[in-house]
Amino acid sequence: MKELRDVLDGIKPLEQNVLDEAKRKIDNLTKPPGSLGRLEEIARRYVGIRGSVTATVGKKCIFVFAADHGVTEEGVSAYPRSVTPQMVYNMLNGGAAVSVLSRHVGSECVVVDIGVDHDFEPAKGLIIDKVARGTRNFAAGPAMSREEALQAVKTGIDVAMGYARRGFTLFGTGEMGIGNTTASSAILSVMGNLPPEKVVGRGTGVDDAGLLRKAEVIDRAIVRNGPDIRDPIGVLATVGGLEIGGIAGLVIGGAARRIPVVVDGFISTAGALIATALKPAISDYLFYSHLSAETGHAAMLDMLGQTPLLALGMRLGEGTGAALAMSLIEGAVKTMHGMATFEAAAVDKAIEE
Amino acid sequence: MKELRDVLDGIKPLEQNVLDEAKRKIDNLTKPPGSLGRLEEIARRYVGIRGSVTATVGKKCIFVFAADHGVTEEGVSAYPRSVTPQMVYNMLNGGAAVSVLSRHVGSECVVVDIGVDHDFEPAKGLIIDKVARGTRNFAAGPAMSREEALQAVKTGIDVAMGYARRGFTLFGTGEMGIGNTTASSAILSVMGNLPPEKVVGRGTGVDDAGLLRKAEVIDRAIVRNGPDIRDPIGVLATVGGLEIGGIAGLVIGGAARRIPVVVDGFISTAGALIATALKPAISDYLFYSHLSAETGHAAMLDMLGQTPLLALGMRLGEGTGAALAMSLIEGAVKTMHGMATFEAAAVDKAIEE
Repeated sequence: MKELRDVLDGIKPLEQNVLDEAKRKIDNLTKPPGSLGRLEEIARRYVGIRGSVTATVGKKCIFVFAADHGVTEEGVSAYPRSVTPQMVYNMLNGGAAVSVLSRHVGSECVVVDIGVDHDFEPAKGLIIDKVARGTRNFAAGPAMSREEALQAVKTGIDVAMGYARRGFTLFGTGEMGIGNTTASSAILSVMGNLPPEKVVGRGTGVDDAGLLRKAEVIDRAIVRNGPDIRDPIGVLATVGGLEIGGIAGLVIGGAARRIPVVVDGFISTAGALIATALKPAISDYLFYSHLSAETGHAAMLDMLGQTPLLALGMRLGEGTGAALAMSLIEGAVKTMHGMATFEAAAVDKAIEE
Repeated sequence: MKELRDVLDGIKPLEQNVLDEAKRKIDNLTKPPGSLGRLEEIARRYVGIRGSVTATVGKKCIFVFAADHGVTEEGVSAYPRSVTPQMVYNMLNGGAAVSVLSRHVGSECVVVDIGVDHDFEPAKGLIIDKVARGTRNFAAGPAMSREEALQAVKTGIDVAMGYARRGFTLFGTGEMGIGNTTASSAILSVMGNLPPEKVVGRGTGVDDAGLLRKAEVIDRAIVRNGPDIRDPIGVLATVGGLEIGGIAGLVIGGAARRIPVVVDGFISTAGALIATALKPAISDYLFYSHLSAETGHAAMLDMLGQTPLLALGMRLGEGTGAALAMSLIEGAVKTMHGMATFEAAAVDKAIEE
């Protein structure tokens, strides 16, 4: 893989001529102009990303980046660390929510072990590419080295580029990692310059004492590690997570290969925050799937200036929101290609007043 | 068909034991309790409606009730009346938005000609059961007789019962009828006791003058016809539409046969307003698909105390929102049945604190 900077430099704004052509096409379909609302904007941007007004949604894949977090030592999660590998097995066996919803929308679902503290045997639907066996406890020092953070991002880029070569047309992000809402909240606190107590939520379900612990841990981590908002890779290294780096990489790699990426919830959006801080033009390539019920997500989306497609009170992560949004995106693109024009269907146009 | 009152009397509240059993089942799946948000409530209510905790989503159908409106004489639509039958042909040929989105979500799509001012030949996907060749201009007198209104509702009930017998498990509402946002706004004005200028929107795209005309026409219709909020069939007859009556009937018939009905947008919700005014328990059987961009829809949903599943700025009608929501509902039910339990997947439960 080329260096990160080269990949970032290769990401270009969408082609205006394709966007314009798509608008003309959509406006001639048998419906009042604009009446499909956001579906029209989705379809237009999808083909704009793909670079051709005839682009359709073909093979789809959700990538669940899985990793462990040293910060679980601080008692920040309602679930034990053992759940990270257990849930990976559940996903490989098709029994997790993201497995079910991926099947429902016709998407593949692949787990990327980017840093689980467990040795998996090779399995179908599993990519083993560990950067480390989890992060270190960032309340006591950096979560990882700068090199590890860069390696996590590059792992995500490699995954994106590999699946681009295999003809995939739509990516979704997902994650599994006990402790990762604390890392995501810490990233939000730094990147959004927000006090820790404003960015922590209950994650998988901590009680009030757990919530206070999360805020206190993030406060300690920021004081201890001094992450710099102007250095997104540094923020990822000091208070992030390996799976968050992988997601940032997937987002970057998707944009570099003109493949739209559907961003799942809170943790995935933390990855997107890192990626878009490195290269703002990446935003054009992303679809934010849903508003999570996790506390900090609305603040992240606000920072990014984005309104997600769904708001169903979900807070599971894994890629569940991305899966549902993928189906909306595919439906939107199908309307663009499958609907008749006024002329072809011999439908009268609006009365000129 | 039995008399309307008998059908309404046969609609019962959902069975609490099935709802309770569903909650226990969902809470034991491999996810933090409640973390799938509204998907959990959807799945629970779906099986509660069907009367069995093992119920799955099988055959689905969207019913597009089509009819003409005499009130188009008043210049209330941006499109000529000819578009109603033209769009029916477009739907039968699979080129309308609802056709594309129905296919996308694996639903059948059937047009019910309940009152189009055009003679269709029999065709696949078309039920011809005209109550009249459109309504009369309600600015000058009642849109239809009480008998016609009742007949429209009964037509919808018959359609629901026929498809229930054929093993369908999920219905969606849809409509086509140039002029029908004016009728729906009039129903909202009466049922919500709201001034006409607050309930009219641009429909398929009228200009400011058209908007004023719509409000003025509704005002005249209410003064002229004196609809009584306590008599929903009377409201339907005086200022409604045949397709709105058909939708009300579909909703009633679905509830009577324990089949969940996904309500599309503004016009469909006008039908649901009539149905739930006749029998409030029907609400438990309905899923409101999306918030339309059409002005009065938010007020209708507010009256009904409902938050729809989607908000994508759509305002096309036809059943397009219902189609998208059907897929969410099916996905929700699949998580309930397809996810592993903590025990089966050997995933540790939350730490007891």
